[in-house]
Amino acid sequence: MHLRGAMRIKPIIRLLFIGAMLCISGFAMSQPPTGPQVVSPKVHADKKVTFSYRAPNAKEVILDGQFPPGKVPMVKDSQGIWSVTVGPIKPDIYPYSFRVDGVNVMDPANVDFFPNERFKGSLLDVPGDQPLIHAVRDIPHGAVSYALYPSIEGSTGSVVIYTPPGYDKNKSTKYPVFYLISGTTDTEETFFKVGRTNFILDNLIAEGKAKPMIVVMPYGNPAARIAEQKGLPKPTDLMSRDGDDAVNRAKMFETDLVSKVIPYVEKNYRTLNNRENRAIGGFSRGGGQTLRSAFGNMDKFAWICCYSAYLSTPEMEKTFKHVYENPAKTNKDLKLFWIGVGNEDFLYQDAVKFIDFLKEKKVKHTSLITPGGHTWMNVKTYVTETAQLLFK
Amino acid sequence: MHLRGAMRIKPIIRLLFIGAMLCISGFAMSQPPTGPQVVSPKVHADKKVTFSYRAPNAKEVILDGQFPPGKVPMVKDSQGIWSVTVGPIKPDIYPYSFRVDGVNVMDPANVDFFPNERFKGSLLDVPGDQPLIHAVRDIPHGAVSYALYPSIEGSTGSVVIYTPPGYDKNKSTKYPVFYLISGTTDTEETFFKVGRTNFILDNLIAEGKAKPMIVVMPYGNPAARIAEQKGLPKPTDLMSRDGDDAVNRAKMFETDLVSKVIPYVEKNYRTLNNRENRAIGGFSRGGGQTLRSAFGNMDKFAWICCYSAYLSTPEMEKTFKHVYENPAKTNKDLKLFWIGVGNEDFLYQDAVKFIDFLKEKKVKHTSLITPGGHTWMNVKTYVTETAQLLFK
Repeated sequence: MHLRGAMRIKPIIRLLFIGAMLCISGFAMSQPPTGPQVVSPKVHADKKVTFSYRAPNAKEVILDGQFPPGKVPMVKDSQGIWSVTVGPIKPDIYPYSFRVDGVNVMDPANVDFFPNERFKGSLLDVPGDQPLIHAVRDIPHGAVSYALYPSIEGSTGSVVIYTPPGYDKNKSTKYPVFYLISGTTDTEETFFKVGRTNFILDNLIAEGKAKPMIVVMPYGNPAARIAEQKGLPKPTDLMSRDGDDAVNRAKMFETDLVSKVIPYVEKNYRTLNNRENRAIGGFSRGGGQTLRSAFGNMDKFAWICCYSAYLSTPEMEKTFKHVYENPAKTNKDLKLFWIGVGNEDFLYQDAVKFIDFLKEKKVKHTSLITPGGHTWMNVKTYVTETAQLLFK
Repeated sequence: MHLRGAMRIKPIIRLLFIGAMLCISGFAMSQPPTGPQVVSPKVHADKKVTFSYRAPNAKEVILDGQFPPGKVPMVKDSQGIWSVTVGPIKPDIYPYSFRVDGVNVMDPANVDFFPNERFKGSLLDVPGDQPLIHAVRDIPHGAVSYALYPSIEGSTGSVVIYTPPGYDKNKSTKYPVFYLISGTTDTEETFFKVGRTNFILDNLIAEGKAKPMIVVMPYGNPAARIAEQKGLPKPTDLMSRDGDDAVNRAKMFETDLVSKVIPYVEKNYRTLNNRENRAIGGFSRGGGQTLRSAFGNMDKFAWICCYSAYLSTPEMEKTFKHVYENPAKTNKDLKLFWIGVGNEDFLYQDAVKFIDFLKEKKVKHTSLITPGGHTWMNVKTYVTETAQLLFK
């Protein structure tokens, strides 16, 4: 198809010509774009942010972001591009999406996305005047690896593993390990891509505030993965009202963690293999799993970090009496038992109840109540706080 | 907020109750779902596939997939869920999206996405009756690392690196390196997430068909990244008709590759550091960059793999005369010069012209013409073919 000199012809021919011209410069695309390129989001110097989304046929497009003012209607221009400017927005990284005629979609112009099984969102990064603790700074960086490991029931599991700066060079050094678990519908990528755990650790290590450590981020729902690999319908996590069902899935996670993930990590990485050098933490469902896995394996973990989660008093009484029946022993065994929650989190009251329960039972713990809700902005704060406390 | 026993009340209270119930089981979510969970895509035993998308207010939803029949209208049910069943589809991994009132969106129910700066798509995985060369098999797996490296102009570059099975154990072994570059709007993740390069290599190595090698996948557009890190507007790649502009951007890529990426890799990984042990390949814009980088650095690479790309005769005559003026030398120096293209690719004719040019100039090369177009299905075929030829 020779299309040189076709510039005056119809739009489709013009598009083909552009394609051809790009090829002439040895430059071609996986998929041709439709229409002029929308740039979104645009963070301005004053920290206002303009979002744009092309949807000429939509009746309504709403910006749906985890930053004030929350949901904001966007306005369509003559080219069918919807826009809105909000802010100034406090520097941080925030999930957002566009709600198009009632359906939330990602920002197609933004490569920063929120890895998730259930919804699709994008990430707004508002940089600070000084680099924030999760920013990419000019310091030594660790690496993030995607690995597969032999999991339970003959399945293959996925895990993302952070190794600190210097790991590849210091070939005789062994490292402590922080097992870090994300929430419902999150994937093994979420603590990396949304939590920016690797950058937070890089920066804290560079500042001498955290010990170099390996961070292991497993996928939190082996029950679903196993069902999928066996060709069975996935268990409907989200609608489970049966306490036992959720407890069973958590048990499956714990079995996978203790009998498969930990041995895999200890076989393939240079790790210190004792409870003093194993921490476990997690957000939301991952926080619940953290508590259950830690309490069920006190011989394995000496550091517990619970972000935006709790266990109910009935479950503590049913399954984890040993944790509080001899508080002196627990307090000696656990080098850290840390709980963080936002005071606008929908489970704030339950988390407070859990903290009160621990207080009453004289189980030593540290709690941090922050502003905000059940968000990854708070998770980043909690990772930053706890990483400075581990293995010291 | 105590909501037990609120099951009979309004839907929003019901949703809050479900949230609370999930919390009671120590199980909470990053973001509550809206409505019943849609499962999509559903691959049936006969390899037909059902796609579903909830959009109660949309006027039109079309399945837009890189498999027959291409664009297909979906049909809305009484719950506002649009569906269609297509196929049987030949086993492979295909990009697709839903075109909702004229705008393409990802499938929110599908965690497999297409990493890209410009559009958002999902990936349909139709497994074979026997595992395909890109499937996850029960064999030793390599690892995929996300790393940062100090790039040109004081910027920080991103690169994804595959290390083969055994890399961590065989601490005295050094490996050859395949530098593999994706296309316009692709990211450094695309050869991993869409190309499944790591699984293809795992499987070929397990079968004894490929030499264990490191694969380095850099981001293909440092010019854009540098502009972004400096707070400048990104160069509008897609509309560039200026040959020089594209050549300059390719030069910037080449400088980054040769002066920053390669030294970073050779410093941090156990590599064989000579031209006989360095291969370079790429798809689309990455193929053009492959040719320019290889021809401009014949002392660095002895293996060239060009997927769905070419250089024009004028550019060859202007810049790369040395490649064809002494064909005997080139043919001795290059251990492999491989070009693959689909016969339905929009740049097929130009690729054929390039192959004919090489033939005429007596530059030895291998070419593979496959059915299909400018797709990642073809790229996976080309990676599979060439990985078996490298470093032998």
